[in-house]
Amino acid sequence: MEKIRMGMIGGGRGAFIGAVHRIAAAIDQQIELVCGAFSSDPQRSKDSGADLGLSPDRCYGTYAEMMEKENALPADQRMQFVAIVTPNHVHFPAAKAALEAGFHVLCDKPATLNLQEAKELKPIIEKSGKLFGLTHTYTGYPMVKQARHLVANGHLGDIRKVVVEYPQGWLAEAIESEDQKQAAWRTDPSKSGAAGAMGDIGTHAENLAEVISGLHIDELAADLTAFVPGRRLDDDGNVLLRFEGGAKGVLHASQIAVGEENNLAIRVWGTKAGLEWHQNEPNSLYVKYNDRPTEIYRTGQGYLCEAAQAGTRTPPAHPEGYLEAFANLYLNFSNHIRAIEAGETPSEVAKDYPTIDDGIRGMAFIEAVVASSAKNAAWTKLDC
Amino acid sequence: MEKIRMGMIGGGRGAFIGAVHRIAAAIDQQIELVCGAFSSDPQRSKDSGADLGLSPDRCYGTYAEMMEKENALPADQRMQFVAIVTPNHVHFPAAKAALEAGFHVLCDKPATLNLQEAKELKPIIEKSGKLFGLTHTYTGYPMVKQARHLVANGHLGDIRKVVVEYPQGWLAEAIESEDQKQAAWRTDPSKSGAAGAMGDIGTHAENLAEVISGLHIDELAADLTAFVPGRRLDDDGNVLLRFEGGAKGVLHASQIAVGEENNLAIRVWGTKAGLEWHQNEPNSLYVKYNDRPTEIYRTGQGYLCEAAQAGTRTPPAHPEGYLEAFANLYLNFSNHIRAIEAGETPSEVAKDYPTIDDGIRGMAFIEAVVASSAKNAAWTKLDC
Amino acid sequence: MEKIRMGMIGGGRGAFIGAVHRIAAAIDQQIELVCGAFSSDPQRSKDSGADLGLSPDRCYGTYAEMMEKENALPADQRMQFVAIVTPNHVHFPAAKAALEAGFHVLCDKPATLNLQEAKELKPIIEKSGKLFGLTHTYTGYPMVKQARHLVANGHLGDIRKVVVEYPQGWLAEAIESEDQKQAAWRTDPSKSGAAGAMGDIGTHAENLAEVISGLHIDELAADLTAFVPGRRLDDDGNVLLRFEGGAKGVLHASQIAVGEENNLAIRVWGTKAGLEWHQNEPNSLYVKYNDRPTEIYRTGQGYLCEAAQAGTRTPPAHPEGYLEAFANLYLNFSNHIRAIEAGETPSEVAKDYPTIDDGIRGMAFIEAVVASSAKNAAWTKLDC
Amino acid sequence: MEKIRMGMIGGGRGAFIGAVHRIAAAIDQQIELVCGAFSSDPQRSKDSGADLGLSPDRCYGTYAEMMEKENALPADQRMQFVAIVTPNHVHFPAAKAALEAGFHVLCDKPATLNLQEAKELKPIIEKSGKLFGLTHTYTGYPMVKQARHLVANGHLGDIRKVVVEYPQGWLAEAIESEDQKQAAWRTDPSKSGAAGAMGDIGTHAENLAEVISGLHIDELAADLTAFVPGRRLDDDGNVLLRFEGGAKGVLHASQIAVGEENNLAIRVWGTKAGLEWHQNEPNSLYVKYNDRPTEIYRTGQGYLCEAAQAGTRTPPAHPEGYLEAFANLYLNFSNHIRAIEAGETPSEVAKDYPTIDDGIRGMAFIEAVVASSAKNAAWTKLDC
Repeated sequence: MEKIRMGMIGGGRGAFIGAVHRIAAAIDQQIELVCGAFSSDPQRSKDSGADLGLSPDRCYGTYAEMMEKENALPADQRMQFVAIVTPNHVHFPAAKAALEAGFHVLCDKPATLNLQEAKELKPIIEKSGKLFGLTHTYTGYPMVKQARHLVANGHLGDIRKVVVEYPQGWLAEAIESEDQKQAAWRTDPSKSGAAGAMGDIGTHAENLAEVISGLHIDELAADLTAFVPGRRLDDDGNVLLRFEGGAKGVLHASQIAVGEENNLAIRVWGTKAGLEWHQNEPNSLYVKYNDRPTEIYRTGQGYLCEAAQAGTRTPPAHPEGYLEAFANLYLNFSNHIRAIEAGETPSEVAKDYPTIDDGIRGMAFIEAVVASSAKNAAWTKLDC
Repeated sequence: MEKIRMGMIGGGRGAFIGAVHRIAAAIDQQIELVCGAFSSDPQRSKDSGADLGLSPDRCYGTYAEMMEKENALPADQRMQFVAIVTPNHVHFPAAKAALEAGFHVLCDKPATLNLQEAKELKPIIEKSGKLFGLTHTYTGYPMVKQARHLVANGHLGDIRKVVVEYPQGWLAEAIESEDQKQAAWRTDPSKSGAAGAMGDIGTHAENLAEVISGLHIDELAADLTAFVPGRRLDDDGNVLLRFEGGAKGVLHASQIAVGEENNLAIRVWGTKAGLEWHQNEPNSLYVKYNDRPTEIYRTGQGYLCEAAQAGTRTPPAHPEGYLEAFANLYLNFSNHIRAIEAGETPSEVAKDYPTIDDGIRGMAFIEAVVASSAKNAAWTKLDC
Repeated sequence: MEKIRMGMIGGGRGAFIGAVHRIAAAIDQQIELVCGAFSSDPQRSKDSGADLGLSPDRCYGTYAEMMEKENALPADQRMQFVAIVTPNHVHFPAAKAALEAGFHVLCDKPATLNLQEAKELKPIIEKSGKLFGLTHTYTGYPMVKQARHLVANGHLGDIRKVVVEYPQGWLAEAIESEDQKQAAWRTDPSKSGAAGAMGDIGTHAENLAEVISGLHIDELAADLTAFVPGRRLDDDGNVLLRFEGGAKGVLHASQIAVGEENNLAIRVWGTKAGLEWHQNEPNSLYVKYNDRPTEIYRTGQGYLCEAAQAGTRTPPAHPEGYLEAFANLYLNFSNHIRAIEAGETPSEVAKDYPTIDDGIRGMAFIEAVVASSAKNAAWTKLDC
Repeated sequence: MEKIRMGMIGGGRGAFIGAVHRIAAAIDQQIELVCGAFSSDPQRSKDSGADLGLSPDRCYGTYAEMMEKENALPADQRMQFVAIVTPNHVHFPAAKAALEAGFHVLCDKPATLNLQEAKELKPIIEKSGKLFGLTHTYTGYPMVKQARHLVANGHLGDIRKVVVEYPQGWLAEAIESEDQKQAAWRTDPSKSGAAGAMGDIGTHAENLAEVISGLHIDELAADLTAFVPGRRLDDDGNVLLRFEGGAKGVLHASQIAVGEENNLAIRVWGTKAGLEWHQNEPNSLYVKYNDRPTEIYRTGQGYLCEAAQAGTRTPPAHPEGYLEAFANLYLNFSNHIRAIEAGETPSEVAKDYPTIDDGIRGMAFIEAVVASSAKNAAWTKLDC
């Protein structure tokens, strides 16, 4: 089976998430990295590409150059999709350029720098006839898919309450002033957008809550804080949620929660059962009842739904992690491309990855929390 | 050593919390139940007392009768303190009567039916010269005392964020209409007060957050809901918190969280470390750092603070539970009485139990969440 | 209801387990401590009794004196049963004396100093017509009762394997030479018997394994070690088990497992399901299947068996611990006495506590492991 | 950087472990699969290779053909190492052929079909001047490396006791008779060797115990059982261990432990501290003390040893799993090849993978447990 050819924008030497994307793309051996515009500095782009074993003529100084030169290559050589792994402010122009040049796009989250860009992007995608995927990694976990399945199938009854949280501790001090590159752009509004922690991780929490519950947040009341002196964007936020249909919820996220790693976690309670999932122990899903024992669903088991089983490469009990969840996005996305290019109907599993609709909701969430917080936590609707 | 003599108001046949109080009082063999007004029905009061091995002449039909007749007994026979274990609306009049009759009072929480009563009670206590304790059980756990100690000693640095939660599931259906006595009074405003879940368990969360963090909630924004059709009081609430001094927080509590038992839990993050404690695993306290391994403090160990060690009856590794935490309140309270009656200075440990000040704050919390929620989660100060 | 009157042998000032017994007896307010021979030093016995509020004339210098003088009291005042909480070498003579004097006996474990004594004790008990209970505390936990119930009801199918373990760390150094009283007698063969760790905690593991699995150990191969230089009894042991009927197993126990508290744990696997229980998290019982999610049974829930429910004093989710498990032994034992003395048929629950048969098996286990280890782990049958 | 070229023996369509090896090799994008003898059926080998995108001329029907034809290729095209992923009986002849043909070998475990082969293999390796790695996956986990480091650095003091276990449940029924391919060869002595569960997973436990403790097992006493009727090899085993230098231990492994996934776990206790690690929660390492709180070391943190840090691809808190542990073996092995071929001194990390010495010990373990069990658990020395 031939591999799907991928190009990459961003992810040069020293970047964190670019390397993660490349691993995720490599795991299933279905995708080959063939080119990249890894850095806006042409030499740095070539050096980065050389590290990755690419030939210099396919390491470009700009994504515009990449689009042009790749399109000049024979169809069976040129890249088929672009992974965008830059800071947020580059997402929109790079995605637009790639789509308009005829390439599918798999973009890191949040979708764009602001809501307006995200809304503009949707018709561009539709017009292009190309695919657009968004790497909300956490929904790639099999147990998240199982959780979504249980809710969708009515196992929990009507959903009443959602608590989602994402505490981290790594920005508890002003490390952005110590030349920590990851911290620097995330705390810079021109690169990160209107929100800090809320954009970086709050959107993951929002996406997880909506995906699992199957409900849209209608309005929210947010109290954002920049605890670290001198920081320009929020590093902590607490949000009351009201979902369409009457469910209530809480979302809190923080990057100053000292000692926390990446403790994304969610609990959902319905009229019949509740569920609980923790990213730090991603292979277990707890399902709870008032009148019988709590159940622990586990990755890889035969009793899981199809989408959950499709995302597991080993028999049960070989613990999976973040990279496999990430790889599931790449796997489904590349299978979607494969089906389309073969003129086949993609399977439900192949279409199971976040799209621009998730992206618009994420950007609307960011704008809403920032607007709400600016008005002292006034209730604010999501504009989408 | 002679036992301290206790009377009880409420807690007759069929009551839940009265039996718990009696166990808590019995564990350390320092307290003797000598009389009671267990029920407003004199015969039921006598029957309840007979179950407990009391002589009929010390089982009273009213607390007023109890005060009068006990005071008529010789000093070395009459009760020394009263435990009030009735529904909330009886707390204030019973406590007032007992204090004015010269008895110490240990009262179930919340302190009173409303904030005004709590505020009135304080000068009554002061005037009486008697002790008033409030059974916020959870602060009786040794690991809560250790958590309080770590914060007070600066181990966590300056506190930035507190997340406290109390999900339960037992009121997910309208069991109050099925003659479930515990559910019935808790969902009846005339007996429970202005709040349902927020009064019953939200106050425990509020108390735990303030005790451990050492901070007072300044203002809050609350979104309360009665999910179960026909229920007159909230069975769920989500609250944004702002503490004096700038810390932020979240409090959520629910009685419709299907499958949850009694999952009171708290996380506190400061500039130097974070901590985490769960009532369902009460003998472990997690202390977290950005630059070294998480530590698990355990009940009974020699490295704990004095208050934590004083509340443990066995060597480490004999798991303790709710009843021992409750007993710690009784033990300290009775030792306080003992010291006072012996004309001695009570130890710090003997004074370590919740008082009317906790009670006033709890009632102010209830009034604030109800008022805030009525104004669509408007920020509301605690009136105390 | 009148309380059952208890006397105590041992448990004077400074003892550990005596205080635990008194708490366990006090919790349910069904038992009253009326006398004691707390120490072989008469003055120390009186002082200890005074601490407990006993009158000096019921604090005896010897258990012989206690038997005699109590029997001289009117029937409605004299003690009804004796709790024996001394080091092991006193168990047999004290129990014999009490039984022959007409008192029921509740004895700490292991039953006696050696197997011969245990075997002698059985006909003495039978002849006396009195009850004899043994405080293997851990089988008092509700979730142990539920585990026993699941196995007995065939929920696990035929049992194939049992792994039971009890690591502790408190004897990792030679603290017996530092005047640590608990360590001193436990490491002294004249007081502890032929085994150290195997007698003190190995017997708990053996008892737990047999009670839950419903199987008797047929033969074993044991490798015992005294790791601490100069120690005369084993402080560690590893044992292969073969049960009657063909199940296999492992038992390991240690008092030199640094950092371990009291981690008694058991796993049992049958042809249909497996189960797992940990004393450090005593309110959860894990039941596992090959084809469906693991279940977590929890203390206090309505779906538990009668024996498990009978041992819980609070609604679910109020964590219980070691003292409540211990109290369950006292509660059932005292209810058994109550039934007998009322001429009633005791309930199944009232009879649910360990007896001399458990004691004989425990002593046979001790003798077998010591004999096996002396023969380089030769297979050795339990002599009972 | 050019990729290291890999060939594969075994791992055709339907195989489990071959796919895992390919993922492990792909993750870090340092290795390229260039050829294979995936099946002894030439067409099946070609079909399997086609699935993987290989050209038909590099898909061979036998490993002999592969050696010959690859050696006929130019040096910069031919494979540099062979991964052997067949059932056990093919390991030795395939490894011998590859080494003698001048290729490095990375071989699945156990090393060979029996001890004699393993001992023969060692001089073959030495004579070839090529590398031989063995995929004991579990020692690839960062926290296992950290555990090894803590013991080696004296953090635990002198090691006294090791408990290692590996319960699985998937062979609880006779699925080998239902055409389950994985079960079939594992329960067939001609393909699996003298042991069943002990060879398949017992060796993993043995290797883990020796690697972490830094101690060699001197002698053992084993009780093996085939619980499933008709099964020819053990599906369960319990083993007493004695290590050189006096430490003791227990090893138990099972494939009939219903409901268990892959619960490899180890505890090691020394004179100063103890440690605990569970494969099911592989990113946490518990380190325990008698006089201070237990510590939880976590994957990816900056306080870990070099070998542990080298095996992590993401910042802390992105959970890693089995595939990353496996990839660490491939990464280090390929870096070792890279260093050697560049004439450089390999780093300590590059040499950090299991070798033939682990393989010989594993085979000696298998022979010893089988021999011991045949003699009713007689103490048996490891012959190496």
